Amino acid sequence: MPEIRWDLITEERVIIATERSRRPHDFKKADAPVDPKPKFVSSCPFCLGNETLTPPEVDAFREAGTAPDSPGWWVRVVPNKFPALAPEGDLNSRESGIYTLADGVGVHEVLIETPKHNETPVAASPNQWLEAMRMYQRRLQVLSRDERLKTVLIFRNEGKSAGASLEHPHSQLVGLTFVPPVLQRHIEGVQRYRSRHSRHPFEAIIEHELREGVRVVRQTERFLLYAPFASRAPYELAVLPLEPIARFDQMPDESLKEFAELLQDALRRLYAVLNDPPYNYMLFTAPCGYEEEFWLHLRIAPRLSIDAGFELGSGVGINITAPEDAAQYLRGATPSS
Amino acid sequence: MPEIRWDLITEERVIIATERSRRPHDFKKADAPVDPKPKFVSSCPFCLGNETLTPPEVDAFREAGTAPDSPGWWVRVVPNKFPALAPEGDLNSRESGIYTLADGVGVHEVLIETPKHNETPVAASPNQWLEAMRMYQRRLQVLSRDERLKTVLIFRNEGKSAGASLEHPHSQLVGLTFVPPVLQRHIEGVQRYRSRHSRHPFEAIIEHELREGVRVVRQTERFLLYAPFASRAPYELAVLPLEPIARFDQMPDESLKEFAELLQDALRRLYAVLNDPPYNYMLFTAPCGYEEEFWLHLRIAPRLSIDAGFELGSGVGINITAPEDAAQYLRGATPSS
Repeated sequence: MPEIRWDLITEERVIIATERSRRPHDFKKADAPVDPKPKFVSSCPFCLGNETLTPPEVDAFREAGTAPDSPGWWVRVVPNKFPALAPEGDLNSRESGIYTLADGVGVHEVLIETPKHNETPVAASPNQWLEAMRMYQRRLQVLSRDERLKTVLIFRNEGKSAGASLEHPHSQLVGLTFVPPVLQRHIEGVQRYRSRHSRHPFEAIIEHELREGVRVVRQTERFLLYAPFASRAPYELAVLPLEPIARFDQMPDESLKEFAELLQDALRRLYAVLNDPPYNYMLFTAPCGYEEEFWLHLRIAPRLSIDAGFELGSGVGINITAPEDAAQYLRGATPSS
Repeated sequence: MPEIRWDLITEERVIIATERSRRPHDFKKADAPVDPKPKFVSSCPFCLGNETLTPPEVDAFREAGTAPDSPGWWVRVVPNKFPALAPEGDLNSRESGIYTLADGVGVHEVLIETPKHNETPVAASPNQWLEAMRMYQRRLQVLSRDERLKTVLIFRNEGKSAGASLEHPHSQLVGLTFVPPVLQRHIEGVQRYRSRHSRHPFEAIIEHELREGVRVVRQTERFLLYAPFASRAPYELAVLPLEPIARFDQMPDESLKEFAELLQDALRRLYAVLNDPPYNYMLFTAPCGYEEEFWLHLRIAPRLSIDAGFELGSGVGINITAPEDAAQYLRGATPSS
């Protein structure tokens, strides 16, 4: 019997229909040898030594004395070559007949997580990965000073079916002059839940999930890795701090280390169980003005199924893997670097 | 300069960023010979003569005297073999700790549009395609008597990247016991617009689009085919009746003929300009209780780009083809069957 589940926060429904459920290996690519990627690709704009193939860098962790746009860096940030938004423009909206439009003002950066083409999050040394997370923090910190930006979303596209056009390990950052619908609905849901239950929904979720255990993949001192009850798609995961923190850039370094380690562990578990699946992850940090109530979290969405006409036309996800089953497989995984 | 555009009804924003815009042929598949499909495929459950490969049919247009689940049909409806929802169950929601869930009750049918494996909407005779549309009407009519169902969504997935798992021409129908978020937001947007402007937003859109012309692909006596101002993705199209009609199953046959012809024409234009692109279309007909205010419409969403981390995390679409450009290419197309 399929099940309809309500998201505790947004109150949106998903359908859990396991009739065509597959065991994890059925999701695996047809023939699954993972190509060994080289450390350097001469045509790759993100590889060490190819710095001139990108727009001029806006930030980097680099050895003292090395010049921008030259080797010596270990994490590097450049503007997106094909930006979705432009850094300058008129912030005011205007009318065009019955319609409203505005200049597409915002920030669109690429965070190159490593100089090495093959140092994926799964393969990266803990320290290299932590440095990438530190750059997330630094960019959020810097961009929080741009008063035009209300939301900064950091996300990662891994694999072609997750929208990645370049293989070299990187994340992206988009700064928006508004709070987009997904975050708006999340915030409204949090406000609604708090006014009804006098506590943050994530507090309730943590308490419940730790008691039940069935959707928990791993708990660390300060974080929970779990498969959300109303996951829209197979093997969705969330990383949630056990205590509220609003802004990712204000997370203390001890917590950041633990976060980086747990995120890397989560990606390794998915890699092991689903054989290097395409995925996106999205880091949700407090939009400007919501610092009091926001509880940062990260959502990992493996791209194992395709949203088709039903999902596009309804906004309702059909998930063929129960989150409890996903959690069980992922708990049992032996992540290896 | 990228542009932010507001959807007139939902008020949600999209980003039109044509920096990496492509001409239509750049979207085309790498090597584009369209396989000639055979008329019959022995393993295809939807082909004539293979009726026993599907669950027992629930409806069909068939020659008098022919038995269900035997040849003699020209449009056939069967339950989805892997249904997202089950026909029977408890309609009440229940609690599970902090969460809410319910039996996944609903209807999930497959509408086999033709007995011939290769009779795609683009290739179909006008009469065959009209018969498929008549079956849409009949199923909506029949299911409107099931008082548990609040929404019936008919949609079509064409091509693997649009979620189609079977090649044989077919649509699907899902009956839901609730009004899903996409429709809810549409209806709320209509109500908001009407209370502000004292008219239906589609009336304003039709008037404006016909005057401007730049987003119009084709106008017929009773319908408009156009590229919506705030299209979320390249080459999105909408088919809209010029006068309000709430329910697709109550569309008079003269209108239905014109609708079928225009929809087929739209799909042929996309086929010609984008070389047989994957696409979804979704038919939005009045949910139960909204017959007074609903204005039916159909949305065609070619799947030329992939929603990645930004779109998943924000709910904002990035469209690299201006709707005005898409309309221009599609107006100029010479649709051929």
